[in-house]
Amino acid sequence: MSNAFIKLVSKLTDSLEQKNNQAILRAIEQSHPAELGRLIEALPNKYRGDFWRVIPVAFKGEILLSVHRELRQLLIKKTSEADLLVSLSTLQMDELADIDADLPLTVVGAMVEAMDSQRKQRYRTVASFPDNTAGGLMDVDATAVRKDVSLKAVYRYLCKLRKKEGMLPEQLDQLVVVDRENKVQGTLYLSDLVSMDNSLSVADVMKNNVPLIHSLQSAKEVAQIFEDHDLISAPVVDKNNCLLGRITVDDVIDVLQQNSEQTLLASGGLNKELDMFAPIAHISVNRAIWLGVNLITAFVAAWVIGFFESSIEQLVALAVLMPVVASMGGVTGSQTLTVVTRGIARDLVSSANIVSLTIHELKVSFINGLLWASVVFFITILWYGDWKLGSVFALALFVVSLTGTLSGALIPIILKKLGVDPAIAGGVILTTITDAVGFLIFLGTATYLLI
Amino acid sequence: MSNAFIKLVSKLTDSLEQKNNQAILRAIEQSHPAELGRLIEALPNKYRGDFWRVIPVAFKGEILLSVHRELRQLLIKKTSEADLLVSLSTLQMDELADIDADLPLTVVGAMVEAMDSQRKQRYRTVASFPDNTAGGLMDVDATAVRKDVSLKAVYRYLCKLRKKEGMLPEQLDQLVVVDRENKVQGTLYLSDLVSMDNSLSVADVMKNNVPLIHSLQSAKEVAQIFEDHDLISAPVVDKNNCLLGRITVDDVIDVLQQNSEQTLLASGGLNKELDMFAPIAHISVNRAIWLGVNLITAFVAAWVIGFFESSIEQLVALAVLMPVVASMGGVTGSQTLTVVTRGIARDLVSSANIVSLTIHELKVSFINGLLWASVVFFITILWYGDWKLGSVFALALFVVSLTGTLSGALIPIILKKLGVDPAIAGGVILTTITDAVGFLIFLGTATYLLI
Repeated sequence: MSNAFIKLVSKLTDSLEQKNNQAILRAIEQSHPAELGRLIEALPNKYRGDFWRVIPVAFKGEILLSVHRELRQLLIKKTSEADLLVSLSTLQMDELADIDADLPLTVVGAMVEAMDSQRKQRYRTVASFPDNTAGGLMDVDATAVRKDVSLKAVYRYLCKLRKKEGMLPEQLDQLVVVDRENKVQGTLYLSDLVSMDNSLSVADVMKNNVPLIHSLQSAKEVAQIFEDHDLISAPVVDKNNCLLGRITVDDVIDVLQQNSEQTLLASGGLNKELDMFAPIAHISVNRAIWLGVNLITAFVAAWVIGFFESSIEQLVALAVLMPVVASMGGVTGSQTLTVVTRGIARDLVSSANIVSLTIHELKVSFINGLLWASVVFFITILWYGDWKLGSVFALALFVVSLTGTLSGALIPIILKKLGVDPAIAGGVILTTITDAVGFLIFLGTATYLLI
Repeated sequence: MSNAFIKLVSKLTDSLEQKNNQAILRAIEQSHPAELGRLIEALPNKYRGDFWRVIPVAFKGEILLSVHRELRQLLIKKTSEADLLVSLSTLQMDELADIDADLPLTVVGAMVEAMDSQRKQRYRTVASFPDNTAGGLMDVDATAVRKDVSLKAVYRYLCKLRKKEGMLPEQLDQLVVVDRENKVQGTLYLSDLVSMDNSLSVADVMKNNVPLIHSLQSAKEVAQIFEDHDLISAPVVDKNNCLLGRITVDDVIDVLQQNSEQTLLASGGLNKELDMFAPIAHISVNRAIWLGVNLITAFVAAWVIGFFESSIEQLVALAVLMPVVASMGGVTGSQTLTVVTRGIARDLVSSANIVSLTIHELKVSFINGLLWASVVFFITILWYGDWKLGSVFALALFVVSLTGTLSGALIPIILKKLGVDPAIAGGVILTTITDAVGFLIFLGTATYLLI
């Protein structure tokens, strides 16, 4: 499929270039809405409008949901309000609540107006929770039954519900069992329903090992619960354990994907709502901030070097070798930083084990520091024939390895305590420290011992 | 939960330290096997043996499955063969096939010996496919029905199956409809089965919009199909469309998690089967390779600087400012590299749009290059009072920004063509180029214009 998709992008680009509408329509027919979303992401800006115009309105709701925020806003601008209203009617309540912030207010108003009172109520419930909580992820279509009824009665109820609503909720693997006060008692798996004697009661068959999710739990915690318990769906409850809705595994997959994207992009100061072909001014501003931060840290390093100008004038080999020290310190430190940051993100690293882990990491970099210090010692002797310079170089490299590791272990823990995401700021702070310390130790020791 | 888990790690560490077995058992009782796996990951090595010993054998199979390979091998070494056999009997066939490479051969032999002939056959089918293909991910418990039978007959069949096997397959949301030759015709959703008149036939109710997955498709492609179609399970077929098994969404989540971990860790040359508390010698060797590669690239940069020793002796400010040029080139390039590498991983970037994308990126770095070149021009005048030096510095920074961007766009495309994963090698190659080019342009221009 991977190759097939790439070919599709290529063919579609050609068709758009040649304005071959028939070929474009064929590409659309062959694709699922989520694939169409990815196709638009892959298209340069100049083709997007033409492509968007020919996509059937019925698909546009799901496409808007599947693309990144920035692209979504662009596509919404290219859609008439009437078309928007039609396309949004295909979405579930939690999906609507995810994208309503990007819609024109008049459209949101008209959309709510068009709902019946039950849907209106449901939409308001979901919209009242932040997007990154269980309440914001949940859909309010949880199908509930009582525990004192027979399985046969459950069948009858489901048949009736289907006739009334036209369909059952998507990704339905279990019904929620509630009491008269809507408190969750357990769940009834469809696979039990279809394989047990239907004269049994719900109470005989229901399970109570499905974890309840509280509406205010974070999306990250929800994802972890789904992963640990291999869930397809789970009921969401309020603080009295009353049923509010349910979360399905497709929402969880989206959360996991977004988190991993964010980690990857954040380390380069890139916007997670990234559209490759976003307007140039927009991308430039987004990246300029990160470049500015980096420029400051680079000048900190330059400022440290500045103190040793006279040493460098006397022994210019120092200028040649100093980037090696800084670079090795940076890499050693970033290895530890990655391990610790990842551990924090997965709740595996905390004050309970950071001391053990730091000591463990320091032992590793002691060994590697010794190894590479010996290597550069011999390289320096071969290159400059100067064992004193070699010794200073090796010593600095060894010390900066340990400093890098120590910084790599402590920076994310400190940032976490300060409420800053280590995945974003950790790398810059580390490099600033390893550069400054690297230059200081190398040029300082050299000035003291060699000059 | 996140905080609760961290507290659990902390309490457990204390209990292990004090050898308080009652508290340890309490911690185990409160946890799901997958959580126990994460607890072991978070424990320093010295406590792991004591903890592992008190965990009930019934949980050990799922824990072995959930932890990283390196830790799994450690835990397997700490388990008797008899206990291993018991714990493995709780796993599904695809799960067994995932970890069998880590088991002692005698255990694998005894395990297969203990299976009935049907299970033996199933296990061999799954084990015959590589782990990273659909065949390796699938379980062979797909429940199949014929399309000419009534829904009532399907109920009777499922009740019988349940009595025979004790349970239905996990995460069962749909049955596969096959013909006499075992060719897949469509699927029957349980939610349709429970809400339609049971005198209808399977043919009336079945859907044929579930994509078939071919046994040799890659795990990455499978994950994309599940994401695009919001699937819970999907049938896996051979090249004649005959049913082989099914893949469930929990396997897909594991694939997604592993891919995102790998991307994060690969950029630091870290092993993806990472155990934080792995033996020091083991970690040291793993990291030494990356440090060695980095040392070579650092010496390439040093070698370039070496050509300009006499220029630096005459104008030592060059040594002070040169790391700034290299650093800004590196950051600009890595921003583009991240965008393109991520695009390639998601099939959004290919030869169809790389030219458009590269031009788009170059425009961005033209703007940012101009901006930051102006800034450093003024800083240099303030610092050194030398507008000629400022001009050379600014020019070099501008040129290296464009070089970085061009490298960041082309390196991953070239690596991809060569069959190398851009996420692993891209960063090092980019830094080598931006460092070397940065020093060369800055020192070269300075030598030509200022010395």
